[in-house]
Amino acid sequence: MSGEKALAALRAELPEPVLLTDPGSTGRFAHDEAEWAPYGKPLAVVRARSTQDVVTTVRICAELGVPVVPRGAGTGLSGGANAVDGCVLVSLADMDRVLEINPREQLAVVQPGVVNDDLRAACREHGAWYPPDPASSPWSTIGGNVSTNAGGVCCVKYGVTRDYVLGLEAVVGSGEVVRLGRRTAKGVAGYDLCGLFVGSEGTLGVITEITVKLLPGLRAPERTVVGYFDSLVEAGEAVAAVAAAGVVPSALELLDQHCLRAVDEWKNMGLSAEANVLLLGRSDTPGAAGEQEVDTLLRCFDEAGATWSARSTDEHEADALFAARRLAYPALERLGPVLTEDVCVPRAAVPEMLSRIEASARRHDTQIANIAHAGDGNLHPLIITPPGDDAARERAQRAFDDIVDDAIALGGTVTGEHGVGLLKRKGLHAELSPTVVDMHRAVKSALDPAGIFNPGKVFGDPDA
Amino acid sequence: MSGEKALAALRAELPEPVLLTDPGSTGRFAHDEAEWAPYGKPLAVVRARSTQDVVTTVRICAELGVPVVPRGAGTGLSGGANAVDGCVLVSLADMDRVLEINPREQLAVVQPGVVNDDLRAACREHGAWYPPDPASSPWSTIGGNVSTNAGGVCCVKYGVTRDYVLGLEAVVGSGEVVRLGRRTAKGVAGYDLCGLFVGSEGTLGVITEITVKLLPGLRAPERTVVGYFDSLVEAGEAVAAVAAAGVVPSALELLDQHCLRAVDEWKNMGLSAEANVLLLGRSDTPGAAGEQEVDTLLRCFDEAGATWSARSTDEHEADALFAARRLAYPALERLGPVLTEDVCVPRAAVPEMLSRIEASARRHDTQIANIAHAGDGNLHPLIITPPGDDAARERAQRAFDDIVDDAIALGGTVTGEHGVGLLKRKGLHAELSPTVVDMHRAVKSALDPAGIFNPGKVFGDPDA
Repeated sequence: MSGEKALAALRAELPEPVLLTDPGSTGRFAHDEAEWAPYGKPLAVVRARSTQDVVTTVRICAELGVPVVPRGAGTGLSGGANAVDGCVLVSLADMDRVLEINPREQLAVVQPGVVNDDLRAACREHGAWYPPDPASSPWSTIGGNVSTNAGGVCCVKYGVTRDYVLGLEAVVGSGEVVRLGRRTAKGVAGYDLCGLFVGSEGTLGVITEITVKLLPGLRAPERTVVGYFDSLVEAGEAVAAVAAAGVVPSALELLDQHCLRAVDEWKNMGLSAEANVLLLGRSDTPGAAGEQEVDTLLRCFDEAGATWSARSTDEHEADALFAARRLAYPALERLGPVLTEDVCVPRAAVPEMLSRIEASARRHDTQIANIAHAGDGNLHPLIITPPGDDAARERAQRAFDDIVDDAIALGGTVTGEHGVGLLKRKGLHAELSPTVVDMHRAVKSALDPAGIFNPGKVFGDPDA
Repeated sequence: MSGEKALAALRAELPEPVLLTDPGSTGRFAHDEAEWAPYGKPLAVVRARSTQDVVTTVRICAELGVPVVPRGAGTGLSGGANAVDGCVLVSLADMDRVLEINPREQLAVVQPGVVNDDLRAACREHGAWYPPDPASSPWSTIGGNVSTNAGGVCCVKYGVTRDYVLGLEAVVGSGEVVRLGRRTAKGVAGYDLCGLFVGSEGTLGVITEITVKLLPGLRAPERTVVGYFDSLVEAGEAVAAVAAAGVVPSALELLDQHCLRAVDEWKNMGLSAEANVLLLGRSDTPGAAGEQEVDTLLRCFDEAGATWSARSTDEHEADALFAARRLAYPALERLGPVLTEDVCVPRAAVPEMLSRIEASARRHDTQIANIAHAGDGNLHPLIITPPGDDAARERAQRAFDDIVDDAIALGGTVTGEHGVGLLKRKGLHAELSPTVVDMHRAVKSALDPAGIFNPGKVFGDPDA
């Protein structure tokens, strides 16, 4: 009923190519890449062209109590952007203009639909650098990155999306447009509401413009080191040793045999014959200090039992290895529905966590591939099931739950960079105390009193 | 009446040296170092020894509706820790233990009363570095630094307190103890409530434990460059030029003639004979890249019209100059009550803002000294009035208001690092839209429904 009214009101305000209502067109916006997460049937999709389109949509939905689910490119891995039944999906993908790149003030202003790699390329042209580099950077949008507080490969040294968001424009529950944060290097006027919106997964409003911090200058060239290991745990020990040695690499990535084989089967790179587990380390520190870091990385690899380790002397080879890392996820997806983990544990606990992940795979007779931003303890065990095998799916879900429990037991978190979305709601309730969950609910109702923004996500009832 | 009841309940739970009630003892806790900010008469002071003492206090105060005002060392400069009439001041200064320093996980866990310099010294012993270095670092506490999101000298390169807070323990409005944030390198489970507490100036709860991020290794040695300028605006142009050149110095501080003379009169350092305005730059980048940065700084100084500039070859001399910078504020305080500004403007606007500050001083016939974290556009014009001269105080207040307006007009913020407290409430309302102020109020009531924590501060009515 309110759905009908909302559709009529939206039709009166928004033209046809902006407002999509037939299920054939809306369906492809209905979910992100979390293959295991459920999704509902949207009432409509608004492909916003401007902040005004968002205001129009939010005003109508707020008045009629219709849920609003914002989405970027839909590359999320936890179901955060999935449709709930009867919602209006607001796609920000068409708001894709870079509005300003200002190297002097070390900032850029972008619309939320700008693709991560496009922003990075635009910054390069101005002699500046936007560091956050999620593996999805060729496709994911800055708006999505901000909403999930996305991490990435160089985050081990340069921090995550949150560390680069200076200011936001957003449409809030009243349909009003607010500006949060600042353009200056520092600022403490009031609560960090800008930071509160970062990682809030669309539950507090719709972000319509983002001011990000840039680093001056182009990124320094990187040296790459490669280590082959017989076992996950030995590779994990190398990771812990790097942390103990006080080196902060500009990347420290792990791929196991399952990933290497999946990439080989797809791209024929011949990686899986070489190693059971691959560690890729990088240093971008200039000069002698960088050389020392490389030496330390190699020493840590060797002392942890690497079967082979070397500094890559061939830039193309090094780039190919990192490309393989980026391809690992889509390569695995070709084998069947992937249930994606995203736990993050203290660096010293990486070997133990990897060992527990292997134990989970054995215990539940399921296949678990491992990719990891190993240097910051952010592990992505990927649980793969044969298509259509329901028993395997149940075993996979049990392995997933065990991994979440193990991460919490080791002092970790249930999600390092993907967000809670739908898949990690149970984990969130296990990680946070009931009082802290209540604080979340109180903040949510304070800022979204009608409860229209992405209802049920993040701290919603996982059994609902 | 509720005051009497609260006192009786506190007396029943807390022993004498923890609970202070006679005005002779409580008075010295009643305000911070913002000499112009009003303060009320506290009901009592609780010198908390433990989280439990804070829980006891908050429970009693919440039940009886008695205001709770947390405070650290009382070195704040905006009245944020000032007593409101009939409040219980909770001093965290005695909770001063460093609980853990963990270089491998790059973190430390401290009680809120740990003095900034003490934490930094303890980290050094473990081969790690806690960067945030407010000028008050010999006295101010980490709890106070977190509550105000304090900046400092090296923040131009290394970021502010917020960038180093991983997790918090706090006592919230219900009297419950919550843990916010994490110990891992990354984590996105739920809203960044930890970040929300950073810079919340005691309005959301009482912080009782803090987990901070450390950088591995000892800090690299710094090279210092010194520039003398005839005018503030020329020095400001040098600052803007440094930003435009894409150099991020590890410090870029400005002191004007008033500061230099005040330091000379106190410590007889002979600085004011040398220059009208002093710029102090530093680079801690190792190797040839650092040498280049020094060259660029000098070139920027010279091209902006420095009357003299040089790289300091004498480490003691360089340290003495930075010590003078640290002494400037107390040196000026010796001359009369200081009304402290803390605006932050875009880097390119530094010359214009300095010129407007000079115009304000002339227009209102008042003396304004300038210290600045110039490299991030964070200016501290300090308005000095002769003791007891009421007309001068009125003129000073008008200059203060004009400076706030000018900062906003130039795209800046009313407070870069000191916080809003009492002094910048009018500025906050000028800077933020009414909708954003309403969002603040909604978040505040969501997390502090009884309204007991530091009432009237930050977004309170400035005319109340």
